[in-house]
Amino acid sequence: MAEENKIGTYKFVAEPFHVDFTGKLTMGVLGNHLLNCAGFHATDRGFGMAELNENHYTWVLSRLAIELDDLPLQYESFSIQTWVENVYRLFTDRNFAILNKDGKTIGYARSIWAMISTETRKPADLLALHGGRIKDYLCDKECPIDKPGRIKVEEDKPIGEHTARYSDIDVNGHVNSIKYIEHLLDLFPMEQFRDKRIRRFEMAYVAESYYGDKLTFYREQLGENEFDIEVKKNDTEVVVRSKVIFI
Amino acid sequence: MAEENKIGTYKFVAEPFHVDFTGKLTMGVLGNHLLNCAGFHATDRGFGMAELNENHYTWVLSRLAIELDDLPLQYESFSIQTWVENVYRLFTDRNFAILNKDGKTIGYARSIWAMISTETRKPADLLALHGGRIKDYLCDKECPIDKPGRIKVEEDKPIGEHTARYSDIDVNGHVNSIKYIEHLLDLFPMEQFRDKRIRRFEMAYVAESYYGDKLTFYREQLGENEFDIEVKKNDTEVVVRSKVIFI
Repeated sequence: MAEENKIGTYKFVAEPFHVDFTGKLTMGVLGNHLLNCAGFHATDRGFGMAELNENHYTWVLSRLAIELDDLPLQYESFSIQTWVENVYRLFTDRNFAILNKDGKTIGYARSIWAMISTETRKPADLLALHGGRIKDYLCDKECPIDKPGRIKVEEDKPIGEHTARYSDIDVNGHVNSIKYIEHLLDLFPMEQFRDKRIRRFEMAYVAESYYGDKLTFYREQLGENEFDIEVKKNDTEVVVRSKVIFI
Repeated sequence: MAEENKIGTYKFVAEPFHVDFTGKLTMGVLGNHLLNCAGFHATDRGFGMAELNENHYTWVLSRLAIELDDLPLQYESFSIQTWVENVYRLFTDRNFAILNKDGKTIGYARSIWAMISTETRKPADLLALHGGRIKDYLCDKECPIDKPGRIKVEEDKPIGEHTARYSDIDVNGHVNSIKYIEHLLDLFPMEQFRDKRIRRFEMAYVAESYYGDKLTFYREQLGENEFDIEVKKNDTEVVVRSKVIFI
């Protein structure tokens, strides 16, 4: 298969309620678009959620790392490219490029996914998926950003708290992956986004949380512009870790 | 102009992160789509936000009422039709129909808009807008739901509180119209949405709130399934009123 056929390209417009007070697309909305593109691309190739669900498997997002030179402004069109870089037995690496209205690449993202059985919740063998055909889609397009790193938060004094409500919960009954992004960034004061912008953003999805869970946020500053954040549910189990680097 | 040319029709798909735990499109996302459709339709006819901003005017949403028989499920396509019913000097009535994947109408909505000067914040004369041409678009398609009614909340004991954060704020520096919908519905326990569904939903946008404002929620139950809600900022000024009727 030609390399260009392995890349899915999807077009968007930055909607008015999808930009922040600076007029730029929010990280939550960008994250949502990235995950949708992953879904479109997989579905078009026969290994999307709907097909997997029929066979009692589902994709689980494990890691997401986004690095940005810029973001689309309100009403601007932009596009997202996605492709599969690697497939291992238990994980697959899916990458993304974000292109502005002129087709210039303004950011990249990396994601790591596992597949689990919806019955046993145990990981499934990706190399066996779809008759091993997932490997046909491997693409060596460049993704010149670092892989998701290790995030370790020592801080034990919480900086914020949120009880998971109706609007946080997705169709699986879990706090949805995008809502964590919104809640994490809400830990920062507005001035942080006025004076700086996010250069790199990482999410590590460690465990699920549910309606009514008390989410507690711990934040550690690693330098002028770098923050590690950990979210625990009910004061014990870590559900999410994140790194935010401003510029 | 033929009636059918006065109606804008826009297609959508219910994305995974845009449905709630029941698998149906959330009211916030539906509201976002309705407001986007209003924007598309107005822009296509020369009186959209971008054109108005150039002339230092902007649309302000005053009221929204939605009535639903059903909502799209995750991954289902649906469409929204919108048209202008009336134009008065200070307000215009824009209506909507929501159609399911098979083209069957599953809901209607009514909205009321004013136009204000971005310099003086004073209302502008809609009949003078665009050389009076907005009247050419008036359409008498049926919208068989009640107009937004009066909402009055006597309750003075708050049921919830939220301080407006980064993710609440839109490009104008205000808490965005959609975020109020999410916060309002988060006042209800999950069971409310498991056992019932929203039959009718009304929003009255009374005043703006800003980053850091303390939003206090007052709720009054009018019957088994009917709730009036008022949101005040900083314990004084009313910013939003809402009515939610479940079935």
